[in-house]
Amino acid sequence: MINPAILLTPGPTPVPEAIRKLMAEPIFHHRTPQYRKIFGDVSERLKKVFLTENPVYTFAGSGTLAMEAALVNFHSAGDKVLVVENGKFAERFTLIAKAFGLNPVSLKVPYGEAPAPRQIGEALAKDKDIRAVCVQLCETSTAVLSDVKAIGEIVSKTDALLIVDAISGLGADRLETDKWHVDLVISGSQKALMLPPGLAFLSVSPKAKARMATAKLPRYYYDLRHYEKSIADNDTPWTPALTLVLGLQKSLEMIEAEGVDNIFRRCAENAQYTRDTLQKMGLKLFSKAPSSTVTAACVPEGIDGEKLCKIMRDEKGVVVAGGQGEQMKGKIIRICHMGAIGRKEIETGLGVLEETLKEMKSSSGSSCCCSCK
Amino acid sequence: MINPAILLTPGPTPVPEAIRKLMAEPIFHHRTPQYRKIFGDVSERLKKVFLTENPVYTFAGSGTLAMEAALVNFHSAGDKVLVVENGKFAERFTLIAKAFGLNPVSLKVPYGEAPAPRQIGEALAKDKDIRAVCVQLCETSTAVLSDVKAIGEIVSKTDALLIVDAISGLGADRLETDKWHVDLVISGSQKALMLPPGLAFLSVSPKAKARMATAKLPRYYYDLRHYEKSIADNDTPWTPALTLVLGLQKSLEMIEAEGVDNIFRRCAENAQYTRDTLQKMGLKLFSKAPSSTVTAACVPEGIDGEKLCKIMRDEKGVVVAGGQGEQMKGKIIRICHMGAIGRKEIETGLGVLEETLKEMKSSSGSSCCCSCK
Repeated sequence: MINPAILLTPGPTPVPEAIRKLMAEPIFHHRTPQYRKIFGDVSERLKKVFLTENPVYTFAGSGTLAMEAALVNFHSAGDKVLVVENGKFAERFTLIAKAFGLNPVSLKVPYGEAPAPRQIGEALAKDKDIRAVCVQLCETSTAVLSDVKAIGEIVSKTDALLIVDAISGLGADRLETDKWHVDLVISGSQKALMLPPGLAFLSVSPKAKARMATAKLPRYYYDLRHYEKSIADNDTPWTPALTLVLGLQKSLEMIEAEGVDNIFRRCAENAQYTRDTLQKMGLKLFSKAPSSTVTAACVPEGIDGEKLCKIMRDEKGVVVAGGQGEQMKGKIIRICHMGAIGRKEIETGLGVLEETLKEMKSSSGSSCCCSCK
Repeated sequence: MINPAILLTPGPTPVPEAIRKLMAEPIFHHRTPQYRKIFGDVSERLKKVFLTENPVYTFAGSGTLAMEAALVNFHSAGDKVLVVENGKFAERFTLIAKAFGLNPVSLKVPYGEAPAPRQIGEALAKDKDIRAVCVQLCETSTAVLSDVKAIGEIVSKTDALLIVDAISGLGADRLETDKWHVDLVISGSQKALMLPPGLAFLSVSPKAKARMATAKLPRYYYDLRHYEKSIADNDTPWTPALTLVLGLQKSLEMIEAEGVDNIFRRCAENAQYTRDTLQKMGLKLFSKAPSSTVTAACVPEGIDGEKLCKIMRDEKGVVVAGGQGEQMKGKIIRICHMGAIGRKEIETGLGVLEETLKEMKSSSGSSCCCSCK
C-alpha cells in the first residue's frame, strides 16, 4: 500500500475503493459504442451535479485548463474582464487573462473575505466595457465562499458573462448554475467528484454560447467548437482520459444514490462540526464567509504552520493543507470536508491536530495561543 | 470485468496488471516530498526512453495538447512552419498552426508513403523563412515510419526546429532524439508507455529553448516557462494527473527491465511477423515504409472494413482499428504491436482476422480477394 493516511486536503480527496477498482479493470478502446454509451451517460449525469440544463464539456487536463478555456473561448484580445481577487486561485484568472492579451480589471478583496455583490454591481455600472466577471465559488486558498446567487442576479442584468470557478466547490457548496444565472462553471475531477486528478469540466450557457461566435483568441485543444461537434456523438475530439471517465460514471452513481441535496447538507454539517471543534480547540477561523468545501484556521502564534502540517503528515498519518503563497504560507491550516471525506476521518484528523499542537507548544515552551482568541 | 478482449489498437494499448493495481492504491497528496520524489524519478527516467539529455515535460492532457504546446511555445503569429502531411495526425499540425495564426506550408506525401528527406531539404532551401519542420515518427493513421535520422541531419543545418510527433511511436520505433538532432519530441501515455490516456510529454532541445525566448503566441496552461520553474523542484505548476504519473513510474521500471533496445527489437520482430502473416493471408500491406508501432493492411475487395472490425470486436473479442477519415474509412485495418502487446495476442488476433475474412467472403459469395495480390 502506498499510503494508508487520512487525507483531508482540498484535492485530491480520497477516491472510494469501488471507483479505484473499476478504474483498474483492463482498458478498452474509446472509439467504440461501449465508450460512447458511458461518455453520453456521464455528460448527462454531470448536469445533475452542475444543476444545469447546459452542456457540460469534459477535458483531459487539470482545472487550470478549464479556467483558461472559460476565458479564451469567449473573448478577443483587449476585452475587459473583471476578476474578483480574494485568493491565489482567483488571482490565476488575472494571470491567464494577461497571458492572452485581455484587459483584466482587479476587484481586490482582503484574503479571508468574500466579495460584496454590491461591489461587483458598482464595477459593472462604472465600466460598461466589462465583458465577463470571474468569481470563485469556494476560494480554496482561503476557504471563502462567494455569494454566487446574489452575484448572478447582478451580472445577469448586463451583457457580461459570469464565470464561476467551482473546481473545488462543485458538489460540496451549493451552486445552482441555471437558477443563479451562471454562464460558465469550471470544475475538476479530484475534489467533490472523488476521482484522481486529470479531468476538467466546463458548462456553457446559451448566453456564453452566443458570445463564442465572436471570440477571436487563438485556440485548438480546448476549442469548444470541436467539443460541440463531438458531444453530439457522445464523443470527444481528442483521446479522452478514458479510465477517469469510467471512474466518473461510478462516482456520479454514488452521488445520485446519496442525492445532491443530501451531500450539500452533509458537507455543511461536517464543515460546521470542523469549525466548532477548531474553535473549541482555541483556534481562530480564517474565513469570514465559511465554505462547506474546506475550512481554514489560523495557526496559533509561536507555531510554525508548515512544521505542524509536516509532523501531522509524516509522524501521524493525517494530511491537511497549509497556507499557499507568500501571504499565507505557514499561517493557516486547511481541512477539507467534501467528497468521500466523512465525519470519522475529520474527527480523527482534528484529534491529531489538537494533540500535535499541544506537543509543539510544550516543546516550544509557549503557554497558549492567545492570538487566536 | 469490463472487457476481457484482446486489444490490438494503436492506443490505448493494454495496461499491464501491475500498473493497473498500483494506480488503484489509495491516493495521496501531490504537494509532498513523496510525490516530488516520484515525479523527479520519472522525469529523469523518461529521458532514457526519449534517448535524450534534454528535459522532458509532462502535461495532464491528451497528445494533441503537447502537439499544440510544441508549436505555440516556440513561435509567433505569421511564422512559417513546414508540415509534412502524410496522414490524419500529420495534418493536425496544419490545423493547429492555422488556429494560432501561423503560416503552415504543406508538404503533401501520398497516404501510405514516407516523406523523402530530400524533399524537406529542398523545401527548406527554397524558403529560408521556414522556422520549423513538423514530422510524424509513426503516422498512426497509415502506419508509415518517417526517416527521422535523415530528416534531422538536414534540418539541423538550418535555423529551423525539428518537431517530431512520436505520440504512438515512442518506445516502439527507434527515435534517437539527441543523436538525430530532434528539437521537440511529443508523446502520450496510452501507447508504448502502456498507460491509460491522460498524460502528454514534450522534450525540448537547447536550440528550441533559445527560440522559446522570442516566441510571442499567447499561452498559459502549457506555457513551458511555468513548467521549467517547477521541474527544478520535481513538480508541476498545476495539479498533475497523479495516478497516471504513479503508473508511469512502474511502466518505466518495466521498460528498463526489458531494455529499450530489446523493446525496439521485439516490436520490430512482431511487426515483421504481423506483416508476413497478413501477406500469407493474401492481404496487401498499406504502408510502403513499415513501422514497428502499427501495421496497416488493405481490406480485400468486396469486404466492408468497418463491418470486419465490428464483427471481430463484438463477436470475437479482438479489437483492431479501421481506417480514419474520409479517405481511409473502411479501406484498411490496423494492427498494433507496441507496448504490452505480445506475440500471443497478435497470433490470436491475426487468426481471428483470417477466420472472420473467410466467413465474410463465404457469406458475401465473393470468391477471393484478388485486389490484394
